Amino acid sequence: MDLSAWVSTADLIAIAVVIVVTLVSRFLLVRLVRTLTKRALERARQRRKTGGNRAEQLLTAMTFGNQERYEQRTATMGSISSSLISITLSVIGILTILGILGVPLAPLLTSAGVGGIALAFGAQSLVKDFLSGMFMLLEDQYGVGDIIDTGEVKGTVEEVGLRVTRLRDPSGTVWYVRNGEILRLGNQSQGWSTAIIDVPVAYDEDPGRVITVLEAVSREAEEAEDLAEVLLERPTVVGVNAVSATTMTIRLIGKTLPNQHWQVQRWLLEHSLSALAKAGVRSPAPLGILPG
Amino acid sequence: MDLSAWVSTADLIAIAVVIVVTLVSRFLLVRLVRTLTKRALERARQRRKTGGNRAEQLLTAMTFGNQERYEQRTATMGSISSSLISITLSVIGILTILGILGVPLAPLLTSAGVGGIALAFGAQSLVKDFLSGMFMLLEDQYGVGDIIDTGEVKGTVEEVGLRVTRLRDPSGTVWYVRNGEILRLGNQSQGWSTAIIDVPVAYDEDPGRVITVLEAVSREAEEAEDLAEVLLERPTVVGVNAVSATTMTIRLIGKTLPNQHWQVQRWLLEHSLSALAKAGVRSPAPLGILPG
Amino acid sequence: MDLSAWVSTADLIAIAVVIVVTLVSRFLLVRLVRTLTKRALERARQRRKTGGNRAEQLLTAMTFGNQERYEQRTATMGSISSSLISITLSVIGILTILGILGVPLAPLLTSAGVGGIALAFGAQSLVKDFLSGMFMLLEDQYGVGDIIDTGEVKGTVEEVGLRVTRLRDPSGTVWYVRNGEILRLGNQSQGWSTAIIDVPVAYDEDPGRVITVLEAVSREAEEAEDLAEVLLERPTVVGVNAVSATTMTIRLIGKTLPNQHWQVQRWLLEHSLSALAKAGVRSPAPLGILPG
Amino acid sequence: MDLSAWVSTADLIAIAVVIVVTLVSRFLLVRLVRTLTKRALERARQRRKTGGNRAEQLLTAMTFGNQERYEQRTATMGSISSSLISITLSVIGILTILGILGVPLAPLLTSAGVGGIALAFGAQSLVKDFLSGMFMLLEDQYGVGDIIDTGEVKGTVEEVGLRVTRLRDPSGTVWYVRNGEILRLGNQSQGWSTAIIDVPVAYDEDPGRVITVLEAVSREAEEAEDLAEVLLERPTVVGVNAVSATTMTIRLIGKTLPNQHWQVQRWLLEHSLSALAKAGVRSPAPLGILPG
Amino acid sequence: MDLSAWVSTADLIAIAVVIVVTLVSRFLLVRLVRTLTKRALERARQRRKTGGNRAEQLLTAMTFGNQERYEQRTATMGSISSSLISITLSVIGILTILGILGVPLAPLLTSAGVGGIALAFGAQSLVKDFLSGMFMLLEDQYGVGDIIDTGEVKGTVEEVGLRVTRLRDPSGTVWYVRNGEILRLGNQSQGWSTAIIDVPVAYDEDPGRVITVLEAVSREAEEAEDLAEVLLERPTVVGVNAVSATTMTIRLIGKTLPNQHWQVQRWLLEHSLSALAKAGVRSPAPLGILPG
Amino acid sequence: MDLSAWVSTADLIAIAVVIVVTLVSRFLLVRLVRTLTKRALERARQRRKTGGNRAEQLLTAMTFGNQERYEQRTATMGSISSSLISITLSVIGILTILGILGVPLAPLLTSAGVGGIALAFGAQSLVKDFLSGMFMLLEDQYGVGDIIDTGEVKGTVEEVGLRVTRLRDPSGTVWYVRNGEILRLGNQSQGWSTAIIDVPVAYDEDPGRVITVLEAVSREAEEAEDLAEVLLERPTVVGVNAVSATTMTIRLIGKTLPNQHWQVQRWLLEHSLSALAKAGVRSPAPLGILPG
Amino acid sequence: MDLSAWVSTADLIAIAVVIVVTLVSRFLLVRLVRTLTKRALERARQRRKTGGNRAEQLLTAMTFGNQERYEQRTATMGSISSSLISITLSVIGILTILGILGVPLAPLLTSAGVGGIALAFGAQSLVKDFLSGMFMLLEDQYGVGDIIDTGEVKGTVEEVGLRVTRLRDPSGTVWYVRNGEILRLGNQSQGWSTAIIDVPVAYDEDPGRVITVLEAVSREAEEAEDLAEVLLERPTVVGVNAVSATTMTIRLIGKTLPNQHWQVQRWLLEHSLSALAKAGVRSPAPLGILPG
Repeated sequence: MDLSAWVSTADLIAIAVVIVVTLVSRFLLVRLVRTLTKRALERARQRRKTGGNRAEQLLTAMTFGNQERYEQRTATMGSISSSLISITLSVIGILTILGILGVPLAPLLTSAGVGGIALAFGAQSLVKDFLSGMFMLLEDQYGVGDIIDTGEVKGTVEEVGLRVTRLRDPSGTVWYVRNGEILRLGNQSQGWSTAIIDVPVAYDEDPGRVITVLEAVSREAEEAEDLAEVLLERPTVVGVNAVSATTMTIRLIGKTLPNQHWQVQRWLLEHSLSALAKAGVRSPAPLGILPG
Repeated sequence: MDLSAWVSTADLIAIAVVIVVTLVSRFLLVRLVRTLTKRALERARQRRKTGGNRAEQLLTAMTFGNQERYEQRTATMGSISSSLISITLSVIGILTILGILGVPLAPLLTSAGVGGIALAFGAQSLVKDFLSGMFMLLEDQYGVGDIIDTGEVKGTVEEVGLRVTRLRDPSGTVWYVRNGEILRLGNQSQGWSTAIIDVPVAYDEDPGRVITVLEAVSREAEEAEDLAEVLLERPTVVGVNAVSATTMTIRLIGKTLPNQHWQVQRWLLEHSLSALAKAGVRSPAPLGILPG
Repeated sequence: MDLSAWVSTADLIAIAVVIVVTLVSRFLLVRLVRTLTKRALERARQRRKTGGNRAEQLLTAMTFGNQERYEQRTATMGSISSSLISITLSVIGILTILGILGVPLAPLLTSAGVGGIALAFGAQSLVKDFLSGMFMLLEDQYGVGDIIDTGEVKGTVEEVGLRVTRLRDPSGTVWYVRNGEILRLGNQSQGWSTAIIDVPVAYDEDPGRVITVLEAVSREAEEAEDLAEVLLERPTVVGVNAVSATTMTIRLIGKTLPNQHWQVQRWLLEHSLSALAKAGVRSPAPLGILPG
Repeated sequence: MDLSAWVSTADLIAIAVVIVVTLVSRFLLVRLVRTLTKRALERARQRRKTGGNRAEQLLTAMTFGNQERYEQRTATMGSISSSLISITLSVIGILTILGILGVPLAPLLTSAGVGGIALAFGAQSLVKDFLSGMFMLLEDQYGVGDIIDTGEVKGTVEEVGLRVTRLRDPSGTVWYVRNGEILRLGNQSQGWSTAIIDVPVAYDEDPGRVITVLEAVSREAEEAEDLAEVLLERPTVVGVNAVSATTMTIRLIGKTLPNQHWQVQRWLLEHSLSALAKAGVRSPAPLGILPG
Repeated sequence: MDLSAWVSTADLIAIAVVIVVTLVSRFLLVRLVRTLTKRALERARQRRKTGGNRAEQLLTAMTFGNQERYEQRTATMGSISSSLISITLSVIGILTILGILGVPLAPLLTSAGVGGIALAFGAQSLVKDFLSGMFMLLEDQYGVGDIIDTGEVKGTVEEVGLRVTRLRDPSGTVWYVRNGEILRLGNQSQGWSTAIIDVPVAYDEDPGRVITVLEAVSREAEEAEDLAEVLLERPTVVGVNAVSATTMTIRLIGKTLPNQHWQVQRWLLEHSLSALAKAGVRSPAPLGILPG
Repeated sequence: MDLSAWVSTADLIAIAVVIVVTLVSRFLLVRLVRTLTKRALERARQRRKTGGNRAEQLLTAMTFGNQERYEQRTATMGSISSSLISITLSVIGILTILGILGVPLAPLLTSAGVGGIALAFGAQSLVKDFLSGMFMLLEDQYGVGDIIDTGEVKGTVEEVGLRVTRLRDPSGTVWYVRNGEILRLGNQSQGWSTAIIDVPVAYDEDPGRVITVLEAVSREAEEAEDLAEVLLERPTVVGVNAVSATTMTIRLIGKTLPNQHWQVQRWLLEHSLSALAKAGVRSPAPLGILPG
Repeated sequence: MDLSAWVSTADLIAIAVVIVVTLVSRFLLVRLVRTLTKRALERARQRRKTGGNRAEQLLTAMTFGNQERYEQRTATMGSISSSLISITLSVIGILTILGILGVPLAPLLTSAGVGGIALAFGAQSLVKDFLSGMFMLLEDQYGVGDIIDTGEVKGTVEEVGLRVTRLRDPSGTVWYVRNGEILRLGNQSQGWSTAIIDVPVAYDEDPGRVITVLEAVSREAEEAEDLAEVLLERPTVVGVNAVSATTMTIRLIGKTLPNQHWQVQRWLLEHSLSALAKAGVRSPAPLGILPG
């Protein structure tokens, strides 16, 4: 027996060619993918800047001017894609060399196929997580520090991963959310927030008088020092929002900086109640009209 | 060893033929698809114009007269379809050339098959998102600026993507909704909105008298200056809508411009309450009839 | 090298035969399918006319006498089926010709197979939508102008598509519902509607006396001019429907023209309340029996 | 070139044999399946007659004595099964003949396979609907005119189809329910219905006295003329069914003809309230004990 | 052409061998499966008898001593399994004979394969129903006459089928439940039932005094004649079960014969209320303490 | 024709070798698997003993010291695994022998493949049930007599099966729960239980005084004879747990033996109410403060 | 017959080569995977340390400084991966040797394929559990002793397994949660917890005065000895959080050590109520304003 019966010179040359082709195509593909990724990210960034009306553009510019975040995302995408290309090309290269050497690949591939199907069924949610993660990264849906709403869990993003996203919710719990489980994602840090205040008063109060009182509160809010840095415009008293058997509800609406609406809502609620009490507007408590 | 043992002249000619055929068929297919896409979009646009009754046609014409939006959609569809055709034909062309060169494709394709199945399971929601997006674009279901209802999330469309649609909800949060997750889509900007007002009064008030009071309010609304630009017709007092143990509810209905019903509802609610109070109609509060 | 080494005369004749066979079978299949479709639609139409009792037949005839709608449906089905047949036969014909020419189809078909599986997973809801649409059309479940209930969304049909159905709900929103998502479909325009009125009175009123009062209202409704065109028969006072701790509920039921029950319900509710008040029947309000 | 190079005499004989075999086996299979179907339907019918106790047998016999319905079902099943057998045998026959003629079936079948998988995914709910329909027909779960409960939709069956069942619900809406979506089916027309009446009285009434009053009402119901044709037996006062903070609930139960329980319930409720009022039993209203 | 060119003597002998082998193996397999089925059923029966504590054994023995039911189940399983074996072996035998005769099976099997996949997707819930039915039969989970709980539907079993189970619910409706949809099954006829009675009294009553009164009722129940045949042991007053703002709830628990707990609960509730009223324990009604 | 043309001596020897190899490998595999199973079970048992803190170890040791249960589980696993190995090796052996004999296996295997896919879809929940059962047994999640919580159904385990688990719930119903449907399993018999008592008092009571009263009750509980065997430690008064418009809720927490917390909760509730009443603490009933 | 006809010398050498290659590649792969695992774990650990702001880093460092836990995880991952590699390489090696020996692998692999598909469908949730477990371990989402929230079940981790995670919930029940069922995971031990206290007072109280009182309580809390070790900062009175018909709710928020917020909440609630009572702030009870 002689090794040359196993590996001929022609085979050796063929193997060398395969190796070279694999390396070259790896190099070219990585370059190509990096360029495409960069362009996609750049486009996502441009699109963000020009969408919406002027007010939104102002706020958006504020949020997306972050050059550092852009570069970090480019780097992440680049390293992932070159890893994927390397692995895929290596597997194909090795299989081709084995084929040239006359190794019987059929049993290997068939058993891998059976195992692959078994695995594919179980791994489908894993693949889904990674694919969702890649697209969310490419589309720049959120970044570290944004306050997002993933449906069940809401909180501040601490880490953007390919498989899971790490959040910290307002109560301090750290959440690991699988990206494929995020069917729709709300980002509360891209734009503004809306403060909505519903003030309940007695059913039979005069709506006009209550609205006048609340409009005074709204003017006061515009000038209040402690709201100056969070309130984007004077709150509007939109009118009687609902009427139930005992209660008439007046609604105020105001735009604030992202995630600052809680503060504004509490300020308006406190001052509205005080002002209404001063003006003698009655509460909707059913027995509040008993002999006073 | 000699390269001519690898690649014969006949093979070279065959390869050239494959390349030419690929390029020509790419060119023809792109043209064909572009024409078909244009025709489909044009038809969707025509159909929209002639559907519904006259009033709807008026409103629809107003919304769909947007030539710019039509052209933008045509461009998007064209660039997507030519990309898809180029990629598909390139893959087939390369595989055919490799086959002519005698490269053993079996291991490559088998492993791709196994990996493909694994990927297919995980990527099915991705493919679903893209297909849904393409059809929603083709059918012109919504455009940038429309207020839509995707089931869980409602808001103004900021960007129509193939995979995700970007919305901004009324509270200012930006939502990324995957197109495949939109089972049914409601577009509130194609037509009109309906203002529905339910006025609760005491169970034992005379329904006829309450209806008379509210019809006066309705006439007043028709002539009110601040509603002139949003109210499409005089609101109708449809009658007693429900009766519970303590409360009789009278309903008013009115057509408004798209998404302007909130304003009309609040106006009607405020004025109805004032008018009823003036007319001495009692509230449904259980103890409201206590010694006054 | 010579082209005749590529394509022999026998091959050319074979190709010609394939083309002729494809065209002939396309022609025959289209005819066959059109005839079958026509017959299925005709049968669905006949079946509709003879089902149900006499009263339903009357109403159904009214709805289905629409010759125009029948022809439109036939045309739609015919054009769809001939498109499908043309595409399928073309693909098979081209593959056969390529096979005769000795083009290596294996790589092409295998890669299409892998891609096909990947696509099939993602496109399954698309195929489902189209299949559901075709069957709903064949079975004539609804037409433009019908008021239907698709589970989540209810409204008037504006367009019957193969993939989506376009509805307009009562509040004016346009809905695009995917046909495959409609698990059960309710058509409110094929038949009549039922007005159901529940009148609450005090727990300890005499049920017989209340029923007498309401039966007078029911007779009045039969003769009322404003209900003459919508009420199909005199409403029935079916009796005491429920009793809770404080309330006895009497129910009235009446048949009306399709979707006209709201109007009848409101008329009956208003007149019932007036009549009961006149008759001195007390309301179920817990404190209504306090010293007045 | 000569046709005999394409089709030899042996081939022609083989084709003739295939055609004869196909036709004969079609004839035999249709006969076999018809016999089996008949036997299955007959068995389902027998089983129905002998199940349950005597009272049920009486009612069941009444419902299933319908010879006409039985024959109609047999006819439907027979025509469906012979269609299916014809189509399947034709496809196999044609494929075999093409194979004998040397037509390259591989590309045809492979592409059909890929398309078949894509279609299979989308069509699975369609196949499921048909299979469910066939089994529901074979098991004679319901027929035209029965009142059934399909989970979401309840009503009278208007048409039993293989893919969808057409119902009309009590409010007049026509429902098309896909058979595969019916996970469990309740048939209210095979047997009897139960009237359940819950009478609320004050927490501190004497249960024994209330029961005595209600038992008198129950005896009265047995003798009432307007219930004579629907009430199967004297209603039973089963006792105190529940006690809450203010209310004691006494339950009556009675068997009626199918779907006639509403009428009986209302009769009993009305007469119970009258009788209790006469006997001075107090209502559970919290303030009912205030000085009157 | 000569038939002997089609079928040689060797082939005829081979066919005969195949037929004999098929018949013999059918006979042996049927015997084997019948023996195994019998043993499995016998084991299930034994296991049932020896499980649980002594009291349960008593009740279980009572329920499972039914020799007739055991034999019926054995017969059902036997006939099903021999049908399945016959069909499977026939198909294999016919395919083998066709193979010997040189019939080209590939197109037949391939098309069957494509159709099989399409069918398999649609039929999976059918197969699931049958498999679930077989296992439920083998494990003897319930029999005709048992009261079972299938999740959505509860009632008395009227027929145990392989695909569906027929139930009759307490209101008289017949339910057809697909076996594969029963994720968990509760059998209320294998053992005992528990009567649970919650008696609400005023928040500020003395718990000790209330418990003493209820313990007297419990002793009374043990000696009551109308409960003698259903009550398995004296009910226990377990104590104060819950306290809300106005109500203290005392719980009694007692074991009864299967499905007889409603009767016991009503007896205890009625007598508890009477006894508490006699002892002057106040109800939890908030205004029950107003001046009477 | 001669049988030797069918089976050569070499074939006979080959068959003998196959049989011997099959038997030997069956013997070796069974041994191997038994050893591995034993080791896994032993490890699960060890891990259980050393987990948690000291108090838990005490309780755990008490529960898991059961040598009998361990041996029974080992026996079950052993018999299952040897059955599986025997069946698998027999099938492979028979197929190999048939292959040696020249039986055409292709049609057999292909048809088995098509049928196998159809079956696999339907049987997937069956396989899932068995796999879940095997792992739950291996991990020793519960045993006969444990009180477990399977999500929908809670009760005492009566039989641990590979496909279903048999439970008896507190009301006496026997439940058959499929193992694959148990997504998470709670075992209440491995450790302790926690008694949680919420005592509602009037909003404006002094929290400090109420806590003092309840701490006296807690000390009393520690010394009470009827709790001596179930209470693991003195209950803690953790403080004011919640405040609503009318009610302040004080919470007590205490550790008890597994499933004995109901008894402790009722004892504490009863004594707390008595003690608070004695101390003059008012109830949260809204009208409890009316003139007494 | 001669064994050398079965196994040639070349075959023996080939087998030896296969064995050597298998062993060497096993050794190399195990090393490689161990190194990669270590690096991934190390990176996860680093990332944790540098994420978030300074306060979080402090807390995180405290939690993740656990060297022992890190090493244990590395060991677990290493042993799992080397097991997997050994099994996979053994299977491939054996198949290759059998192939060299000329054993017909086709029937074996085909039957394994069919069985594999049947198994794959059933085992997919098993594979999913293991894959999820591996990734959760790699990403160091939680460790023994952490308090985690798996959606349905919350509690302290007792054992981190590859298939299931063992938890003990606060009531003492042990839960076995399958890793694949954990869609999102909340870890309450990585960071801090937030105490949120809502104090309800009467609608018409002066919000300013109530806030002043609560701020005094907040200062008190900062200095309280029993909170010194759990409270991270002085609680903030954020203002009026909500207003209903009868109630105004003031909210306090404070950061605490992980899972210590219950204690802080109860302390604040108790002291707030006392302070408000002292200050004469009225409760929101509807009748609390009646003449006392």
